[in-house]
Order: sequence, then structure tokens, then C-alpha cells
Amino acid sequence: MRIYDLIEKKKKRLALNKEEIAFFIDGIMSGKIKDYETTALLTAICLCGMTMEETFELTMQMAHSGDVMNYNTVKGIVVDKHSTGGVSDTTTLIVVPILASIGLKVAKMSGGSLGFTGGTADKLKVFSGYNLNLSEEEFLNTINRVGASIIAPNKNLAPADKILYELRHLTANVESIPLIASSIMSKKLASNADIIVLDVKFGSGAFMKTLKDATLLAKTMVEIGKRANKKVSAILTSMDEPLGSSIGNQLEVKNAIEVLNGKRNNLGLVSKRLVEEILFLSGYDVKQIKKAIDDAILSGNALLKLQEMVRAHGGDDLLISRMELMKKPKYKQEILSNQEGFVSSIQTAELGKIVALLGGAKQEKNGTVDNTVGIELFVHLGSKVSKGEKIATIYYNKKEEIEEIVKQFEKTIIIEKQKRNKQKLIRLVIR
Amino acid sequence: MRIYDLIEKKKKRLALNKEEIAFFIDGIMSGKIKDYETTALLTAICLCGMTMEETFELTMQMAHSGDVMNYNTVKGIVVDKHSTGGVSDTTTLIVVPILASIGLKVAKMSGGSLGFTGGTADKLKVFSGYNLNLSEEEFLNTINRVGASIIAPNKNLAPADKILYELRHLTANVESIPLIASSIMSKKLASNADIIVLDVKFGSGAFMKTLKDATLLAKTMVEIGKRANKKVSAILTSMDEPLGSSIGNQLEVKNAIEVLNGKRNNLGLVSKRLVEEILFLSGYDVKQIKKAIDDAILSGNALLKLQEMVRAHGGDDLLISRMELMKKPKYKQEILSNQEGFVSSIQTAELGKIVALLGGAKQEKNGTVDNTVGIELFVHLGSKVSKGEKIATIYYNKKEEIEEIVKQFEKTIIIEKQKRNKQKLIRLVIR
Repeated sequence: MRIYDLIEKKKKRLALNKEEIAFFIDGIMSGKIKDYETTALLTAICLCGMTMEETFELTMQMAHSGDVMNYNTVKGIVVDKHSTGGVSDTTTLIVVPILASIGLKVAKMSGGSLGFTGGTADKLKVFSGYNLNLSEEEFLNTINRVGASIIAPNKNLAPADKILYELRHLTANVESIPLIASSIMSKKLASNADIIVLDVKFGSGAFMKTLKDATLLAKTMVEIGKRANKKVSAILTSMDEPLGSSIGNQLEVKNAIEVLNGKRNNLGLVSKRLVEEILFLSGYDVKQIKKAIDDAILSGNALLKLQEMVRAHGGDDLLISRMELMKKPKYKQEILSNQEGFVSSIQTAELGKIVALLGGAKQEKNGTVDNTVGIELFVHLGSKVSKGEKIATIYYNKKEEIEEIVKQFEKTIIIEKQKRNKQKLIRLVIR
Repeated sequence: MRIYDLIEKKKKRLALNKEEIAFFIDGIMSGKIKDYETTALLTAICLCGMTMEETFELTMQMAHSGDVMNYNTVKGIVVDKHSTGGVSDTTTLIVVPILASIGLKVAKMSGGSLGFTGGTADKLKVFSGYNLNLSEEEFLNTINRVGASIIAPNKNLAPADKILYELRHLTANVESIPLIASSIMSKKLASNADIIVLDVKFGSGAFMKTLKDATLLAKTMVEIGKRANKKVSAILTSMDEPLGSSIGNQLEVKNAIEVLNGKRNNLGLVSKRLVEEILFLSGYDVKQIKKAIDDAILSGNALLKLQEMVRAHGGDDLLISRMELMKKPKYKQEILSNQEGFVSSIQTAELGKIVALLGGAKQEKNGTVDNTVGIELFVHLGSKVSKGEKIATIYYNKKEEIEEIVKQFEKTIIIEKQKRNKQKLIRLVIR
């Protein structure tokens, strides 16, 4: 078999078979297939597509290119959730403790921020001392003992995906539903939970700009999961505005704690819907699901579970009950509306990029993250705004850049005379 | 500017502009653009195409990526010819001496055999001692003194094309009219003759299987040449059967000498047509062109010119007047027809491959070539054949492989009861 023939076949829009896909993944793992061959095939896949069968085989080959987690020693149903990435998308810090407090076992691996989207790994560093790099044994022990553990991805989990992912990002081959679906699902299948719920984002602050593309991605991922004998659902949620009221790691952690303290908002709605779906797939009595979630929050058990989990990882859990102890940024700048009307659209990805510019996300591979910076928003889509009304506060540490940042920020909130109809936040569930 | 954006743009089927193409070629020459980026862009170009403007700019950038020949010291009109490659396609050894004997200056660089097609560089080695690697000064002196010189391509001629050509062949990105056209024309423009005539082959023994593709390639190349202020024509000729009566370097050299000695056949027809076109573009009086060519052959001047050129390169020119002195292969095997009827089709590329298997062309980059082996055909398309009639002789040196070779050969000549209509040999001229 030759990679040359695989490239040629794919360029003719023919489907690669199981043996050919195995040959490809084996070849990139052994180094026999060179990067310049891989990027030719990836470009052909992007332009010519892949069938469901091909996408599934690619996912399975990537999932088994390294370690696959084994939860034989964990007592209970092992669950996992995944978001395709959004702005102020902090559901993990809410979903995980609620599930654990209800009695499920949550095994979660989370990456850092990526482009304009945040990442749970960065947010957990707000709890100074939090150890993201548990050994497999410690990870399993923590899940058994606490009910939940969130760590950074095991380096040998789906290593073939890492190779392809990096080459895709170097050669403009990111936007491909089969490649995105197989990348996400290969990691989920290697993480190997029994139940996986996917939060697939669409809109101005998501990688998928349209509901149509997001739905196709969601269906592809759910189908891959089913073929791999997992229980998988996908919830399609709007990212036309930041999910929480703030963007920036520390601010978002505060948002999550507020929801666990009982606050009702969009962030809470989506988080609870994700929990509901996981409980549904776990076989919980449908009638009792909503009550179980409310109880977890009202009793304070979910918040306590977050504290317990943070403590179990060596993090400073005192910050959860005493948020005022969190580090403060040096400066803040209030932004006032210069017109009156209704917020008609929000350039959500741009807000994510602004926070990254403030230092709130890694700008390069080995960069650092300033958790204290961020943006607090006081308006949502549809909010009525008067002239001179405060619409946001920017928290920052580098004085010299703020003028340019404010200019950029002002372009992100579009105010119009007429109020537009608001779209539903939670749009579809795919099982 | 980033190669990433160029790949993305091309994947969206947008045209790259002059600056972007210059950035690409500069990047591959400096090494700043990596092979894995180049193959992604090449795959995107293959699948999404290129406009005429893009193809022209790519050609110009490649042509100027290294040395460009300068013929200021050559007195007269400098002409060049190029064949896209065929089987038993030995026109260069006929066209060049005829042109030189008529008084034009022929500056020709020729490569070796490639895949199933022969190469002039290999054929010239039949004249032992022939030096293909003249310095630029020697090349120009020979052209001035003799009227013609054929050498191997200068290593620094269109080096960007060499890089792209190699990567295309490694990643199944060969079949692209804009990439083929720009590759050929970049070398022709760097070789820098005033007049270029292209022999574009189509059919079972050519890279372009159909007249349609060959026409598109021809039109693209002629247009590139015109935009670069060259006089360029393309002649479309059929390669549904070997052009000469034999395949194999020494046999083909004999075919060429026979034509220069006055023999009339397909090889002669195409060669003369190419000479006619070059003379036409050079401004020769149309009424005198055919006579000039006939005179060159009948007077023996063209053959003497071949001898003179071979001698000027240190080659054994005695072989031209005394072909019986050429080396002989150890064995020959006659092939008799096992049925009667008419030759309806010839698997021409397969014949080329068989001669390569006999050792008649390089099988790998640093392989050797056995000039004495080959196939002499006694039938053409449409020939009436009786059972038991000799249709070919195979000349070979490695006894152990002949049985398999004969089996393969027998599949290449298709004989049917009914005679089929024969297609015209010279189909189109594009100016």
C-alpha cells in the first residue's frame, strides 16, 4: 500500500477503506508517512469530504493510536462532557460538581484556551496549586473518592490526532466536519467514559458559525459514538453572545460559583440541560432528573463538591467560599454606551480575542495566562440601553494597550433602534 | 503574508494574485515555506484549479527562480522545441539537425526518459563520448559554430519547478493542467529561445489520454508563451501507437537516422511538421518552407549536421554513417501473431514500460540504461495481420525475464476481425 494511491483515491472523491485508513494512521505514528504526504491527504479530505464510514474508521484508528483509559476500578457510571468551544463557556465547572454530587463518576480531561475560546484547564489554575497532571492512578483514585476529577489530557491519548491536528492548523485544513468530528471523538473514545454528552456551539462566538454546520457536526459525532458502542447525545446551543456575563478566567470561575450558589442565567440553563442529558443517558428516572439537579444546587452539595474536587487536586478551595480573596487586576475601565437602543448583535469571537489580547489566554504555545483580566458585560442580546449607561467593565494590567482595546471593544456591541427577535439558546438535542 | 492564507484562499477557489504567487515561490526557494505547506497548496491547486493569470504568474516566478539563458552572443534566431513525451518519439534528433542545416540556431536542453516515455538525453548516449554537460560558454559556442547544441538541463534552470515537480510526484499531484503547463513553460522560458514549438501528445502512449485535455494543455502553454512575449505554437499529435517503428534508445536513434536519410514514415511526418512550424514562426516565406526541408534531407545536409553536432559534443559520429557498428544486444525474440485480422489498438504506454523493464530506461533515480534493448514493431494501427506473421522483435540482454516480457507484450497489440477507422496523426495546430 502507498500513501500516494490514498491521496489519488481521495482526490477522485472515492472512499478510503478500513485497511487504508489504518495504513495512514500507522504510517503517521511510525513516521513512515511524511508530513508533506499527510498534508496533501488532509487537503484532499477537506476538499473532497469523507463518508460516515470513513469518518468512523479514522476516529477509531486515532482513538487507538495511544493509551485508552480503563475504568474497571471505578465503581459507578463513568460520564464525560465536551464543549466544542465558546466564549464565557464555563459549563464544565458547574456540570461536573452537580453530577458528582448526584453520584455519577465524572472523568474529565480538559485543554487550555484555544484561539478566541476559553479552556477549563486555564480556569482551574485560578485555584492556585491545582494539579492538572495527576497520574492515571491518582486520577482514578480521585474519581472513586470524590466522584469527579478534571485533569489535563494524558499526553499519550490519541497521539495520532495530535499530529493531524497540528498539521491541519498549519495548513488551513481545520474546517472539515469529518476531521473535526473525528478529532474530538477520537479523544473522547480514548478517554473512554460510558456516557458522553457534547455541547455543540454555533454562532458568532463558535467555530461553527451556522446551526446547519453545527447540526451536521453534532450528528456525525453522535453517530461515531453510537458505532463505538457509547451512549452519546449532543445539545446544540447558541453562541451568538457570551454564555456567562463575563469573559476571562477568574471572572468566569466566579460566574460558575454564582450558578452553583443558585443564580439563574443562561450559563446555568445550558449547564443544567447538559446535566439532565447525562442523567437521562445514565438511566435516571426522567421525572426525578430536574428535582435532583435543583436539590444538588439548593442543598449546597454541588458547591461543596467543587470545593472537594479542587482540594483533592491541591488547589486553593477557600477562594470558592470567599471570592473576595481572589487576586485583583490593577486597572478597570468602564464602558458607557454612546447611543440608545437595543443590543442587536454581539461579535462574540472578537470579545474572546480581546480578552486574549489583554493577556487572558495564551498568545503562543509557551505563553503565560493572566487570569485576573477580562470583560464583565452588563448587557445581553435584546437589552435596552440608554445613552451613557454602563455596558461593560474591562479589567486589565497593561495600561499602555487599553486605548486600542477600548476601540476594539466598542465595535463588538451593536446597538440598533429596533429590537430584534431573540433566538432560542438551546436549539436541538441529537441522540 | 502567510502561506496559511494562500492555502485557505485557494481552497475557496479564489485566485492568488501576483504578489501571493511570488511569496510562494520565494518561500520554497528560501526554505521558509515547508514541504508540508507546499503539498497542501499543490493539492488545493490540483483540486480547485488556477486561472490563466495565476498560471502565467506561477510560470514566470518559476522561470525566474534561477538562471535565465542569454543568447546575446548568438547570431541568428534562437529556436527550441519540446515534446510532452511519448513512446518512440525521437523527433528531436531529426528536427534539430534539419533546422541547423537551414540556418537557424537551435538551443535545446533535454532530459532523460521518464516513466514510460523516452528521453533525448538517454538517446544521445548511444553516441559514446557525447558530453551532455557543456558549460554555458561551450553551449553558446557550439550553437554559434555548429548551429545546434543539445545538452542536459542546466541544474539552476527553474529550480523552483524542480522542487514543485518532485513534491507533486510524491503526493499524486501530477495531473493538473495549470501545474503541467507552468512546469514545462517555466523551463522553456528560462531556456529563453525566441521561438518555441511544442509537440503535445495525446493517446494511449501519452500523459494526456484525450485530445480534449491535450488541447487545453496546449492552449494554456501557448498563452503563457505569448504573455511572456515569445513566439509559440503547439502541434497536437496522436500517440495511440509508437511514433517510430521501434522503441529503445539505439533502435530509435536508427529510426531518426533513417528519416534523415530520406525514409518517409510517421516519425518523419511529425518531425517535418514541427520544423515547418518553427520556420513559419521564424518568418520564413511560407511557399519555400516545404522545399527547404526536403532540400535539407535530400542534400544530406541535415544528416551531416547531426554528425557535426555529435562530434562537437565529443560523441562517436561514425555510428551515424555506419550503423552496423552500433553495439548489439545478446538476444532477440521474434513475436508471431496468433490470430488474423487488423491491428485495432496498441497499448502504447505499456510498450514503453516493457522497454523500461528490459533495462532500456532508468527504473530508479540513479539506475543505468541499456541502450541496446528494445522492441521493433512490424505492424501499425490498421495493419492487416495473418496468423503466424512476424509482428515484432524483442531485443534483450537478460535471458531470465524474457518469458514474462513476451506475455506482457502480447497484451499490448490488439487484433480484431474488423478494420477500424484510423485517426489522423497530426490533429491540430494552436498558435
